[in-house]
Amino acid sequence: MIFELKTTDSGSKARAGVITTGHGVIETPIFMPVGTVGSVKAVTQEQLRTDINAQIILGNTYHLYLRPGLEVLSKAGGLHKFNGWDRPLLTDSGGYQVFSLAANRKIKEEGCMFQSHIDGSRHLFTPENVMDIQRTIGADIIMAFDECPPYPSEYRYARKSMELTHRWLDRCIKRMAQTEPAYGHEQTLFPIVQGSTYKDLRTISATEIAARECAGNAIGGLSVGEPEEDMYEMCGLVCDILPAHKPRYLMGVGNPWNILENIALGVDMFDCVMPTRNGRNGMLFTWEGVINIKNKKFATDFTPIAESTDCFASRQYSKAYLRHLFAAGEILGMQLASIHNLAFYLELVKEARKQILAGTFAPWKEKMVPQLKTRL
Amino acid sequence: MIFELKTTDSGSKARAGVITTGHGVIETPIFMPVGTVGSVKAVTQEQLRTDINAQIILGNTYHLYLRPGLEVLSKAGGLHKFNGWDRPLLTDSGGYQVFSLAANRKIKEEGCMFQSHIDGSRHLFTPENVMDIQRTIGADIIMAFDECPPYPSEYRYARKSMELTHRWLDRCIKRMAQTEPAYGHEQTLFPIVQGSTYKDLRTISATEIAARECAGNAIGGLSVGEPEEDMYEMCGLVCDILPAHKPRYLMGVGNPWNILENIALGVDMFDCVMPTRNGRNGMLFTWEGVINIKNKKFATDFTPIAESTDCFASRQYSKAYLRHLFAAGEILGMQLASIHNLAFYLELVKEARKQILAGTFAPWKEKMVPQLKTRL
Repeated sequence: MIFELKTTDSGSKARAGVITTGHGVIETPIFMPVGTVGSVKAVTQEQLRTDINAQIILGNTYHLYLRPGLEVLSKAGGLHKFNGWDRPLLTDSGGYQVFSLAANRKIKEEGCMFQSHIDGSRHLFTPENVMDIQRTIGADIIMAFDECPPYPSEYRYARKSMELTHRWLDRCIKRMAQTEPAYGHEQTLFPIVQGSTYKDLRTISATEIAARECAGNAIGGLSVGEPEEDMYEMCGLVCDILPAHKPRYLMGVGNPWNILENIALGVDMFDCVMPTRNGRNGMLFTWEGVINIKNKKFATDFTPIAESTDCFASRQYSKAYLRHLFAAGEILGMQLASIHNLAFYLELVKEARKQILAGTFAPWKEKMVPQLKTRL
Repeated sequence: MIFELKTTDSGSKARAGVITTGHGVIETPIFMPVGTVGSVKAVTQEQLRTDINAQIILGNTYHLYLRPGLEVLSKAGGLHKFNGWDRPLLTDSGGYQVFSLAANRKIKEEGCMFQSHIDGSRHLFTPENVMDIQRTIGADIIMAFDECPPYPSEYRYARKSMELTHRWLDRCIKRMAQTEPAYGHEQTLFPIVQGSTYKDLRTISATEIAARECAGNAIGGLSVGEPEEDMYEMCGLVCDILPAHKPRYLMGVGNPWNILENIALGVDMFDCVMPTRNGRNGMLFTWEGVINIKNKKFATDFTPIAESTDCFASRQYSKAYLRHLFAAGEILGMQLASIHNLAFYLELVKEARKQILAGTFAPWKEKMVPQLKTRL
C-alpha cells in the first residue's frame, strides 16, 4: 500500500492524498460505506460503483466470521469474489462488535471469549486468529484487534484497556509478518489508537502506535457518546502525533459536519453507518441541511429529493414520492434514501478534496458546517 | 388505444400483437409487474426500464386512493409524474382489494362500503367514483369496477355477483363516456369477465362483455384457489368468445407455466405479484426450473443466480451470495431476487412472442412447461 500526500491545507491541517492498493486507488479524504455482512444495506454493488462513486467499502470481521463463515468465504476466494466488489475493501477487526453486540464476553490477556448474537454459540477472538480471519476475508486493509472502551470509562479502566490494546497490537503485527496474503493481493495492517477521552492516554497511545511504523493508522473509541468537542480535541491531539506521511482513519465517524471538522484536523479516512441507517429511517443529508422526509410538509413537495447532488436517486425522485414510500412502508424508500445519502457523503469528501487542493478548504468548511446542520 | 394482431399460432391459440397507448407501445404477450402503491416492491424505476425491460406496470386503485390519496396524485399530475414511470400504466379497479383486504365491506347495488385496512376509515366505492379515481391516477388502461367472488362460490351467489358486475360495467362505461382524460393522454376502459368456475356463467359473462365492444377485455376471478385445470378450462372458454381483434388480459396469473398455458389459450396480458412476493421469500424462477435459494445446498454454489437470464442481478451475483443475503436478512437479497424474477418473467413472454412469430410456439411450450416446473 502506498500513500502519496498531495497537499496540506494552509488554513487548517486538512490533507489531500492518494492511497494505492492491490484493488486500485483511493483519493483522500474519503468516506467508506459500511457493508457489515458483505452488503451495503439496500444498495447494489452496481449502484455503489456508478451512482455513489464509492472507492472503498467496509466489511465486518465479527459478522462475516459468523455468517457466511470462513469456509464459504475461503471457497469463494475471499469477500471480493463473494460479493462482486472489485475495488478496495477494509475489514474492521471485530473488536468493537464483540463489545457492543455479543453476549457474555470475557476479556482475557489471550483474547476475548464471546457468544454469538445469532445463535449463542461460543467463540474466542485472539489477535492472532483475527488476523487470520481477515486474511481469509481478503481485505486490502486489515484492522488490529483492539478493545474499544465505552464512554464514559474510568481512567484506570481506560488505561488498562489501552495497554491491552497495545500488547494485542504487537501480536497482530507479529502474526501478519508470519502469514501470507490469502489471495495474492497485498493486505495492510492498520493499528488503532485508543485512550478514551483522556488526553494523556491518547498521547501515550498515539505515540506508541506511531512507533510501530505501520503503513496507516486509525483512531478508535471516538463518537461513542462523548460530546463533539471532546471528539475533536482527542482527534486533533492524536493527528498531531501520528506521522504525516501515513493515512489517518477515524473509525465510525460521523455526520457531515463531523467529517468536515475532522478533515480539518488531519483525518483522511472515515466510515459510518449513519448515511445508510439514518437513511432507512427517513433522514436525508444534503448540501442545504438535514431533511426528515417523513414530515407531513413534504407530502406535496414535488421538487427533487436533492437537486444539488449528482445522483439519479437524488434528482429523479421527488420528496413527495419518497415521503409516500416511507408512509407506505415500501422498501424502495429505504433504497433511495440510502443511495442518496451515500452519494452525498461521497460528494462531500470529493468537494472537500477539491477545496484542499485549491487552498480554500478552511473558509469553505466554516461556511459549510452551519449550512449542513440546518434542519430543513 | 390500438391493438394490432400480428399473428396467431397454427398449433395453438397463442397470439402476438402490439398495443399502442399514449405512453408508448406494448408487445404482446406481455407480463406487467405489479406496483401496488406506486412502486414495484424493492425495484427502482431505472431497473424496471433497463434491467427488467418492463413495458407496462400496474398500480392499485384501492391502495393509491388510500395512500398517497387523490389530492397528492392530482397535484403531482398523475401517477406517471408522481413515480417517474413514463411508460404505459394500468390500474386495477380496487374491486379485488376491497373484497380481500378491507374490513366490514358491504356490497349494495350502489357500490361497496368498506373500512380502510390502514386506519379503519369508512369509504364508498361506486362504479362512477372508481372511474373518476382512475382518471385522477392517470392510468392508460383503466379496469371496470367488479365484484370478484371467492373460490369456491355457490352457483346462486356467483350468478348474482356476475349480474351485479355487468350492471356496474354499464355504469362504468357511461361514466367514462361522460368524463375526459385527466392529463391529456387517452384512458381506455377494460371490462372484466366473471362467473367463477361455472361454464354457463363464464359463457354468459364473456358474451355480455364482448357485446360492450370495449377496446380490450379482461378475465377476472381466476387463480383464486381453484385447480389449475379449472382455470385453463374457464380461460379457454372465455378466450374463444372474446373478440380476436382486441387484447385479452388474464388478471392475477400466475407462475411461469400458467403463463405459457394461458398464452396458448389466447391470452395477451398478465400480471401477478408472484415474481416479487415469492422473490422476497427466496423463491426464484428460471428457465431450468424453480430454486429455493434459502436451501443449504446453495451455501457454496458460486455459479450465477441464473446464467440463462440476461440481467445483471441474474448473472453478476452468485447463488451462494444471494443465499447468504437471505440468511442474514439483508434487503439486497429481496432486491436481487425481485429483479431477477421480473427480468425472467419479461424474458419468458418475449421468448413466447418470438416462438409465436416463428410458428413454433406449441411444441416449444410443451417442452418448456415441465422444465419450468422442475424443482432445482
